Amino acid sequence: MERRVRIDLAYDGTAYAGWQVQPGLATVQGTLEGALGRLHGGAAVRARGAGRTDAGVHARGQAADAAVAVRADDAALLAALSGLLPDAIRPRRVLTVDPGFHARRRARAKTYRYLVDTSPHGDPWLARFALASPGAMDEGAVDEALAKLPGRRDWSGFTGAACEVTDRVRTMTEARRVVTRPGLVAFVFSADGFLTHMVRNLVGTLLDIGRGRFAPDLVDEVLASGDRTRAGATAPAKGLALLRVAYDDADGGDSGDPGDSGALW
Amino acid sequence: MERRVRIDLAYDGTAYAGWQVQPGLATVQGTLEGALGRLHGGAAVRARGAGRTDAGVHARGQAADAAVAVRADDAALLAALSGLLPDAIRPRRVLTVDPGFHARRRARAKTYRYLVDTSPHGDPWLARFALASPGAMDEGAVDEALAKLPGRRDWSGFTGAACEVTDRVRTMTEARRVVTRPGLVAFVFSADGFLTHMVRNLVGTLLDIGRGRFAPDLVDEVLASGDRTRAGATAPAKGLALLRVAYDDADGGDSGDPGDSGALW
Repeated sequence: MERRVRIDLAYDGTAYAGWQVQPGLATVQGTLEGALGRLHGGAAVRARGAGRTDAGVHARGQAADAAVAVRADDAALLAALSGLLPDAIRPRRVLTVDPGFHARRRARAKTYRYLVDTSPHGDPWLARFALASPGAMDEGAVDEALAKLPGRRDWSGFTGAACEVTDRVRTMTEARRVVTRPGLVAFVFSADGFLTHMVRNLVGTLLDIGRGRFAPDLVDEVLASGDRTRAGATAPAKGLALLRVAYDDADGGDSGDPGDSGALW
Repeated sequence: MERRVRIDLAYDGTAYAGWQVQPGLATVQGTLEGALGRLHGGAAVRARGAGRTDAGVHARGQAADAAVAVRADDAALLAALSGLLPDAIRPRRVLTVDPGFHARRRARAKTYRYLVDTSPHGDPWLARFALASPGAMDEGAVDEALAKLPGRRDWSGFTGAACEVTDRVRTMTEARRVVTRPGLVAFVFSADGFLTHMVRNLVGTLLDIGRGRFAPDLVDEVLASGDRTRAGATAPAKGLALLRVAYDDADGGDSGDPGDSGALW
């Protein structure tokens, strides 16, 4: 009996070439599909993710779906996947969903978080999950820039060149800075969809604004012109994590950690 | 002009064979001495640590001292060491101390913390710094056992066989369990000194008590008998960190992070 399951995952993306399957490379999707395949005697099992995280990007609340034909119930399937997946990719929840469930299409919103270690010499415990960017940050300027982001906008100016999507209008509902503890800054963004490198381009620009290289108004100019070359550099992958995917309660509710987005976990 | 400096350090000990120099192995002391040596044109510079952390053990607040003959002031020396040391070993503070300063002998107390990830399938973000030990823990039993520890005692029963110290009387001033967040338990121990594997043996025993394998009274029996074979297994190195070394204000005060020991950083 085939059924469709939703699988919530957390991962340390450091060693992976991103979510999406790529021949010859270790990817999170490929690793998950491999584990599911082993539970099906080696048959190919497709897993669809809610967000295609880039190489080196992490997740606290990735959500995927797959059609499975195993006798194990959800709890047993979760335990089996826990045993089959590596330490860097941990399943957090398995639940049977309706046959039409699609992890990306059913997603109501996604929340990404970018961590910046602003301590003078960097924290070795954060090295895999935060960008080290020592030095003072003009918090007022950064917050002024952040306040310009929420709303329904065309994000072409913050979209990477590799993006093949033509409709670049998305609605951002949350864009804020959280000081998790002294020396650790989290940027949290929620939207109904994100484009290639969008968060990393936003963070690169915000960091430049925080250093006084640009005024907060640059955000308006980039949004209005759609000109990517006017924005700041793309921030490195390591600081980024897919924190949460929002779903209707009928689809199992939100993935990820309960509580505030500013907490580290 | 030679002067003695105290150097506070944080490290991810995963890739190191512990603090102490060992021929042919990467150690924290060896790496620090190498960096200091490069600032002295290749001359040998000895660094003495407050605590000899084992292979794989981490630190938030290791403290070391060294005699240096550089023109750089403390701030410049800190920045230079930051540039010379790898990402896994980060200097946090450099301060000139009196010529008689000795990081271990001047230490008033040390605090170690052991992190246990009790979430059902483990958290990939904690994999380097916490022992994964899923399942229920009998918190009442663990706390009852912890309450037996503070005081001046002979710790032979919790001391590893490799320990060459004969006087095993130490005074423990703090032994507590902190739930940092759901699924993450921290054991925090402060004492005027620790013996080989002492914290790891205590934690192994506490985890066995938490699982109901032993009653809390086992702690009394091990302490009274001094019989290591009656205690629980030695917990793995990865969960352990030297959190803080306490010094008099005249010696620069405590190393490590400000704030509560239960916080992750």
